[in-house]
Amino acid sequence: MLKIGIPLFDGVDELDAIGPFEVFQNGIRFGAALSCDLLAASTREPITASHGLKMFATATTNDGPWGCLVVPGGNWARPDSVGVRTQIQAGALPQMIASVHQGGGLIASVCTGAMLLSAAGILKGRRATTHQVAKIAMVQEGAQLIDARVVDDGEIITAGGVTSGIDLALYLLARLFDPQIAKSVQQLMEYNPSGEVWRGGENLPWGQR
Amino acid sequence: MLKIGIPLFDGVDELDAIGPFEVFQNGIRFGAALSCDLLAASTREPITASHGLKMFATATTNDGPWGCLVVPGGNWARPDSVGVRTQIQAGALPQMIASVHQGGGLIASVCTGAMLLSAAGILKGRRATTHQVAKIAMVQEGAQLIDARVVDDGEIITAGGVTSGIDLALYLLARLFDPQIAKSVQQLMEYNPSGEVWRGGENLPWGQR
Repeated sequence: MLKIGIPLFDGVDELDAIGPFEVFQNGIRFGAALSCDLLAASTREPITASHGLKMFATATTNDGPWGCLVVPGGNWARPDSVGVRTQIQAGALPQMIASVHQGGGLIASVCTGAMLLSAAGILKGRRATTHQVAKIAMVQEGAQLIDARVVDDGEIITAGGVTSGIDLALYLLARLFDPQIAKSVQQLMEYNPSGEVWRGGENLPWGQR
Repeated sequence: MLKIGIPLFDGVDELDAIGPFEVFQNGIRFGAALSCDLLAASTREPITASHGLKMFATATTNDGPWGCLVVPGGNWARPDSVGVRTQIQAGALPQMIASVHQGGGLIASVCTGAMLLSAAGILKGRRATTHQVAKIAMVQEGAQLIDARVVDDGEIITAGGVTSGIDLALYLLARLFDPQIAKSVQQLMEYNPSGEVWRGGENLPWGQR
């Protein structure tokens, strides 16, 4: 059973988080051996997302250990608003990412969530992508930009902006569980994946079954 | 200023509602003269969506008048769970849809939200689509099925399943406001619309500007 956590924070982009969440929940319905939770320090206080949605986490960050984190972005291009930059300054989320990474977990990001991976120090020299607004910043911090919708660099997988998180989650369902499950979820959600999945390295710690 | 409302209810599909919500909120940032709220009887009690997300409405159904309703679906294929069928039995949401329709408002649906339009009595003889699981039921209730991703039948516009709500909202931004705004939002969200938009009738009450 793979425990997937999607960290929430004030200013998180709604679809960055909820797109993958819904894909993974549907994956469970089709038989994928995973759990997927939206994470925050507390499940009792709502977080306010970047477009105004107030929502609750379904588990706390302490409910791990997490085998996989899918890190959303939000408000990177709006530095006056809370969001990814606030989380980088606060430090707890980058620390959690580094810790799960060091423990052998899979780290994925959607949109400007990649900047949280970069702040965690795990993107240096790695192939990655992010939302258009953060590509230069990500490269300046040492990542190697691959212009694809989803970039699979082994135990670090990143996606482009917002809706590409749906593609990322479908790709992970296929890689980690079963391409047929991914296809069933795609059809249930009437989604047409678009854009390239770039897949590097043959010696992936998480093999495609 | 067009006031758009997206009704929430227990069992609503998360992306059916939040996809269009995020598109419209981004439309505002690019200059569209609209407001968009997630609606429930109360903004103080969270609703629980079909995949387990707990979220709050941003306005109550009484905060209208609503110039446009975008009605999401959810749990149609799971009759033992709360969702669209519960809302049809309760009656208040179909009544609200009928009332906004009779007042000259635009009614849109995503996914099995079309069955709520049907329950409101406004789909008889109208061209419409819905999620794959509800197509036969919708036809049995008198709608004329058009197999397209978005079906524009004038003041009633319907979309297919789940992610097609993003296409619907982008289409509405283009039709009601400005195709350039729709394009800007599409690029911001890194979304690639796919599938056909079927557009009927030339004498639309809401003209494309």
